[in-house]
Amino acid sequence: MSEQDWDLIHAVHLKGAFKTTHAAWETFRKQKYGRIIMTSSNAGLFGNFGQANYSAAKLGLVGLANTLALEGAKYNIKVNTIVPTAASRLTEDILPPEMFQAMKPELIAPVVAYMVHESFEDSGAVIDSTLGFATKTHLVRSNGAPLKKKPSDEVTIESVKESWSKVVNMNGAKHLQKIADVTLDLVDKLQEFEERSKLDSERDSYWTTYAYNAKDLVIYALGVGASVSNASDLKFLYESHEEFSPLPTFFILAGMCMEAPVVQNAMPPGKHADFTNILHGEQYIEFVGDFPGTEGAFTTRCYVVDILDKGSSAVAIVNSEIYQNKQLICRTQQHIFVLGQGGFGGPRNSKLAVGVENAPKRAPDAVVEQRTAEDQAAVYRMSGDLNPLHIDPNVATASGHQKPILHGLASLGFSARHVLAKYSNNDASNVKALKARFVKPVLPGQTLVTEMWVEGNRVHFQTKVKESGNAVIAGAYMDLKKVSSGGAPAAAAPASSGGALKSDALFAKIQEEVKKNAAKAKAVNGVFVYNITENGKNVKQWTLDLKTPEVYNGAPKSGKADTTMTISDEDLVQVAAGTLNPQVAYMKGKLKIAGNLMLAQKLGPLLKSEAKM
Amino acid sequence: MSEQDWDLIHAVHLKGAFKTTHAAWETFRKQKYGRIIMTSSNAGLFGNFGQANYSAAKLGLVGLANTLALEGAKYNIKVNTIVPTAASRLTEDILPPEMFQAMKPELIAPVVAYMVHESFEDSGAVIDSTLGFATKTHLVRSNGAPLKKKPSDEVTIESVKESWSKVVNMNGAKHLQKIADVTLDLVDKLQEFEERSKLDSERDSYWTTYAYNAKDLVIYALGVGASVSNASDLKFLYESHEEFSPLPTFFILAGMCMEAPVVQNAMPPGKHADFTNILHGEQYIEFVGDFPGTEGAFTTRCYVVDILDKGSSAVAIVNSEIYQNKQLICRTQQHIFVLGQGGFGGPRNSKLAVGVENAPKRAPDAVVEQRTAEDQAAVYRMSGDLNPLHIDPNVATASGHQKPILHGLASLGFSARHVLAKYSNNDASNVKALKARFVKPVLPGQTLVTEMWVEGNRVHFQTKVKESGNAVIAGAYMDLKKVSSGGAPAAAAPASSGGALKSDALFAKIQEEVKKNAAKAKAVNGVFVYNITENGKNVKQWTLDLKTPEVYNGAPKSGKADTTMTISDEDLVQVAAGTLNPQVAYMKGKLKIAGNLMLAQKLGPLLKSEAKM
Repeated sequence: MSEQDWDLIHAVHLKGAFKTTHAAWETFRKQKYGRIIMTSSNAGLFGNFGQANYSAAKLGLVGLANTLALEGAKYNIKVNTIVPTAASRLTEDILPPEMFQAMKPELIAPVVAYMVHESFEDSGAVIDSTLGFATKTHLVRSNGAPLKKKPSDEVTIESVKESWSKVVNMNGAKHLQKIADVTLDLVDKLQEFEERSKLDSERDSYWTTYAYNAKDLVIYALGVGASVSNASDLKFLYESHEEFSPLPTFFILAGMCMEAPVVQNAMPPGKHADFTNILHGEQYIEFVGDFPGTEGAFTTRCYVVDILDKGSSAVAIVNSEIYQNKQLICRTQQHIFVLGQGGFGGPRNSKLAVGVENAPKRAPDAVVEQRTAEDQAAVYRMSGDLNPLHIDPNVATASGHQKPILHGLASLGFSARHVLAKYSNNDASNVKALKARFVKPVLPGQTLVTEMWVEGNRVHFQTKVKESGNAVIAGAYMDLKKVSSGGAPAAAAPASSGGALKSDALFAKIQEEVKKNAAKAKAVNGVFVYNITENGKNVKQWTLDLKTPEVYNGAPKSGKADTTMTISDEDLVQVAAGTLNPQVAYMKGKLKIAGNLMLAQKLGPLLKSEAKM
Repeated sequence: MSEQDWDLIHAVHLKGAFKTTHAAWETFRKQKYGRIIMTSSNAGLFGNFGQANYSAAKLGLVGLANTLALEGAKYNIKVNTIVPTAASRLTEDILPPEMFQAMKPELIAPVVAYMVHESFEDSGAVIDSTLGFATKTHLVRSNGAPLKKKPSDEVTIESVKESWSKVVNMNGAKHLQKIADVTLDLVDKLQEFEERSKLDSERDSYWTTYAYNAKDLVIYALGVGASVSNASDLKFLYESHEEFSPLPTFFILAGMCMEAPVVQNAMPPGKHADFTNILHGEQYIEFVGDFPGTEGAFTTRCYVVDILDKGSSAVAIVNSEIYQNKQLICRTQQHIFVLGQGGFGGPRNSKLAVGVENAPKRAPDAVVEQRTAEDQAAVYRMSGDLNPLHIDPNVATASGHQKPILHGLASLGFSARHVLAKYSNNDASNVKALKARFVKPVLPGQTLVTEMWVEGNRVHFQTKVKESGNAVIAGAYMDLKKVSSGGAPAAAAPASSGGALKSDALFAKIQEEVKKNAAKAKAVNGVFVYNITENGKNVKQWTLDLKTPEVYNGAPKSGKADTTMTISDEDLVQVAAGTLNPQVAYMKGKLKIAGNLMLAQKLGPLLKSEAKM
């Protein structure tokens, strides 16, 4: 900041109070300590009739504070802005009289005093205070939008107009800290625009997002017949189970793109598709990257690769590519029958279709039976497919069914579970791919019979309804990395070390405290393991062996943990900071505790950032 | 705007370009048309090193625009701000070189051209544009916090410090349009602070919020044994059912306050409560206001009214008051046993406890049996109580149970459903109150036997496990507005008119279009009913009788609807505006369609705001 800067800044401020501040700044800078408070007003933040100059000056002060906060940072100079609404001529006519009376300046003075105290660490904040109440204001930015359809297009007034509703859509708007973040964000979005446009130019694509958490996985598992009466299913039903895992078929949902008019918009001229004339014919899923964790968010690209003409009906082949953090995680393919919309002279087959495979002619190597529940469809639809065909008796009978039918994907979920249990030790991450054709509907309450044949690393399967003998799923297979039968699955060992996490500092502090207070630590008399997760996957493990006592990265060196806690890096930092109550975290399934719960309670104080043992 | 204002404003803008603008303003004002674009910069929005004066001036321009936008409104003068990042000396050193090359000003010109076009209706917006991309920026405000504990306290530096984390917590921050909104918001919060403080001074209270939607209701209904195999349960399981309704016991969840340390903090000195030593002993719920709708948000106050000393154990009596839009909707009371924490010399009884009532000595007037599912607890816990006692075999056996036990509230949900079906025609809004004591645990898979006795408008009930003969719920009753048995319930008629809704304008437009194009309307040949909801309750009904054709407020004058659609006022306006895809709305359960689905498709175009038939 030069003397001249201050002179110019002076022009902003009507009262001229800042003219003398440059000397103060230099003093602050030398002392490596300073707290500056700007005074702005709501007339600046919002505008106010007859106060254009005042509004400009008052918001100008915020602009000034923004730069001073940046420049002051390395000198421990914090610059903040207060918006003090106290009784004054300016506010007399816009406030209810009794409120005006109550608006004492002495209610704001302690706020300013706190903001100039050496303990005050915020900088660049705008605080509105009045009547013993305070709020913080900051800027947020929309996700914005490209102003053209393809990168190679020109930006025109028309193309701007077309993009405008996305530009000004403030859903998901975020606060960015500094200009560099704006640039990074923009580079990211432009890259994404380039990449998507390249893919879109090959095939008209729809981009959707899909987020899931542990609760979604459990509701899905219940929908496809996982049951506590089968002990080996518990890992799919209990979010604190030490091997809690998604079922592999769950991720088919991320590729459904149910909300995009993918098939509708790809139909040949004169043909149409809507949810009253489509049927799910076949399904394929293939895991490309790491098997996904127990919570996460995906970006999915959906596109029609071919529309087949099967005579009376059309079949749309819809591919999905499912990305997490820009990594391709899995692909899916759906064959969607569009009833009565064939006969347009299209091809009967497609090279891009993943085909079904007939099962060997021999008797099956294994057979598993499971009855579906009367409420199976009612539960399965809670995973998102609310089509009334699966719950409304009127809609079902109008479609020629005796009663609401089970979702094809629910039956497939049953059979895939049967194969997974029989030949993959219930290890979902061992699955490479799955394909199935839906042949006939299943009625809730019917018994599914899954027949399996092993051929190399492929398990062929087909599914019949026991009561009718009808085949309901045919030509199906699951490809495994390794076929196994029986025996306990090798539990995936959590990574014993990993990249730097936010919680590392916390454990370093605990390490230090435990060293300093060995006797108190020993009194707890327990061995605790923390599994730290990101995107629902274990990425680091810490052992707090309070018996020795010793705190280290990795699994217990000897013996086993009394209590194992699983929590995300983000959540653990919040617990430590006191902004997330551990009990709330536990009740919401964010903190999972296995083993001795009582011992876990004793550990509480250790987790507080500021805790001394 | 006076000439002098412009002179002062001029001081803000380094280039002086606005000096001549006052004449333009006057011209605009006379013509009742004008579009003004201010030029700001990210250096203003974020601050930038060495640019304190520039940042101040540039953000000052936004302040100026804020006031001009307000003043221009009635003259159709729109004032917006552009943040154009194009290649210039200022940006040369902060941008990657290839991006700097690409930053052509001609990519921004069309944005400015669009923003000055007469069709451009936004005013007071700040738009950042560069590289053929644009985003909008606006201010959001935290919910803020009072700077003291009680209204009568002084504001001190210490009290400010204590409140600070709430003041600066930007979760749920919102954009406010004008200063008047800030004032309204503040008045509202101060009132709330006064009211809550008054209640808190009577009893230490915890305030929590609880939001629910149709999916939550269905998952709950499945958890308490509602089943599609019982046709009369469908109204609790199918969100598009024309009588879709919450179960009355669902609202007990809103009063649980599971995430607040209500009981813990009320324990006498030396006694403690945590989730390992507490048991749900009794439950009461009473409906005070209108029966809640199928979605909504509540604010709940929880407080301990008494801690009883029962010898070896303590019993905490916890009241909840559940508010919607500041109206008291229902109250609940829980009796929480705190095992091993008695003997502190407290009272054995409390006048504030709602007591159980013994059933009459005669044989029950009605008995209903229902088997719970093996997975009953696994499903019920999806409604929020994730205590491992109900799913983890190790925890269950450690607590002396043979296997994980069913939640007491799940068993109560079964019995309450039985009473509701038998004596209230499954009409949840007929329930006044419910009370029960939990005597013994139920194991999933066991059969519940609910015995009922009618005494006036009270139905006494108790519940036994068939397999063991053990009583599990005792001293229970449900108070009804009116006891009935058998016969179809009188369907609550939707209000045929109601207050002004946002969608009214839409129907007025449809009315007009249908009148203008009677022949085309008749061709659709259907009668459609729209139920418009707020907070999940029908508040208005419209009939589109396209046979006559006629569009009017209320139920069909003759015959019945071919298709009935239920949608919230808010969502319908979004569908009409094109910001909510009807198919998406349907798939998410926001648009419910009963009757002829195919006909509903034909109606699509009528719903578009801009549609001509």
